[in-house]
Amino acid sequence: MAMITDNTEADTRHRILVVAEKLFREIGYQKTTVADIAKVLRMSPANVYRFFDSKKAIHHGVARRLMGEVEDAAQAIGAAPGPAAQRLRELLSTIHHMNSERYVGDSKLHEMVAIAMEEDWDVCKAHMEDIAATIGEVIAQGAANGEFEAPDVPLASLCTCTAMMRFFHPQMIAQCVDKPGPTLDQMIDFVLAGLAPRGGGRK
Amino acid sequence: MAMITDNTEADTRHRILVVAEKLFREIGYQKTTVADIAKVLRMSPANVYRFFDSKKAIHHGVARRLMGEVEDAAQAIGAAPGPAAQRLRELLSTIHHMNSERYVGDSKLHEMVAIAMEEDWDVCKAHMEDIAATIGEVIAQGAANGEFEAPDVPLASLCTCTAMMRFFHPQMIAQCVDKPGPTLDQMIDFVLAGLAPRGGGRK
Repeated sequence: MAMITDNTEADTRHRILVVAEKLFREIGYQKTTVADIAKVLRMSPANVYRFFDSKKAIHHGVARRLMGEVEDAAQAIGAAPGPAAQRLRELLSTIHHMNSERYVGDSKLHEMVAIAMEEDWDVCKAHMEDIAATIGEVIAQGAANGEFEAPDVPLASLCTCTAMMRFFHPQMIAQCVDKPGPTLDQMIDFVLAGLAPRGGGRK
Repeated sequence: MAMITDNTEADTRHRILVVAEKLFREIGYQKTTVADIAKVLRMSPANVYRFFDSKKAIHHGVARRLMGEVEDAAQAIGAAPGPAAQRLRELLSTIHHMNSERYVGDSKLHEMVAIAMEEDWDVCKAHMEDIAATIGEVIAQGAANGEFEAPDVPLASLCTCTAMMRFFHPQMIAQCVDKPGPTLDQMIDFVLAGLAPRGGGRK
């Protein structure tokens, strides 16, 4: 009986987050009220507040869900077999495409991102650390099999993420979408060159 | 006589821009009025309008001046003697430090940057192209003397600028100032590694 209640509660939390994300995408974060979310779910606002004590808590839950999906996709690529350089390319491309789909174009989720970066920085920081750790794993695999030269793996991963800012950072993706610059694959080539082993005499 | 008039006019334009920049820094672009600028100069607003037909034109002039100083400093480094890698490091550092000084911290010029990027994009684009061209010159020198491997110099320069976004882009400098990430020198090391010649067998 307890388990059924738990499942139902988890299910309700999940449905609240799905509806909230949909409204944040369509109407924008600022304009969406808890009453709007409750109405779509045919619940009372008081019932929504039983699961999330504020709109900010819903925001937090939606952000975690969206970021968690990217983290899961990244980890799946990190754990797959195959050459590290090829998987690093796939990993960097996937992060770019998932972040673009989420936060750019018709979607109004960029508003949510801006708020997360200001008011809920810890959730963004944890996400970036998770992504950097997965990138670090692939770099470490490449360093171990001689594909890469990376004496300091965490640093190489941080530099890789920083070099990809135009393609990772939601605000930069949106701002640069119609601006001149390297293509995603050209930028990944440049990053892979930075990780490639040096020739004999040179450092 | 014509020359004296021209000099005086150029001088007045210059003084208007200096005062406008000072007020944009201190009060912010939005809050500064043409009347404020005129008051500091002990001129009538009508006289200021003789030189700049709108506040936007003053904004444009201030932006060009600030960007022109960075372009001049970059070109001086590009034209100096010495190893290309060392000059590229100095060039990338100088751009970062000059942009930080201009647009971050106490200065309210970031507001002006945001407006320039939305309303006066051409001036930003021309500036980025100028900086990329100077970086391209130094990369070409390094490619010619064997310090770098860069079969496509304009692309290598674009990738270098893109990789440095965290340290070049005013909004990113401001946003990342207290965030974890590589240091400026670590990031430049990563970029230089991307430009370094590959060992014999590898591409």
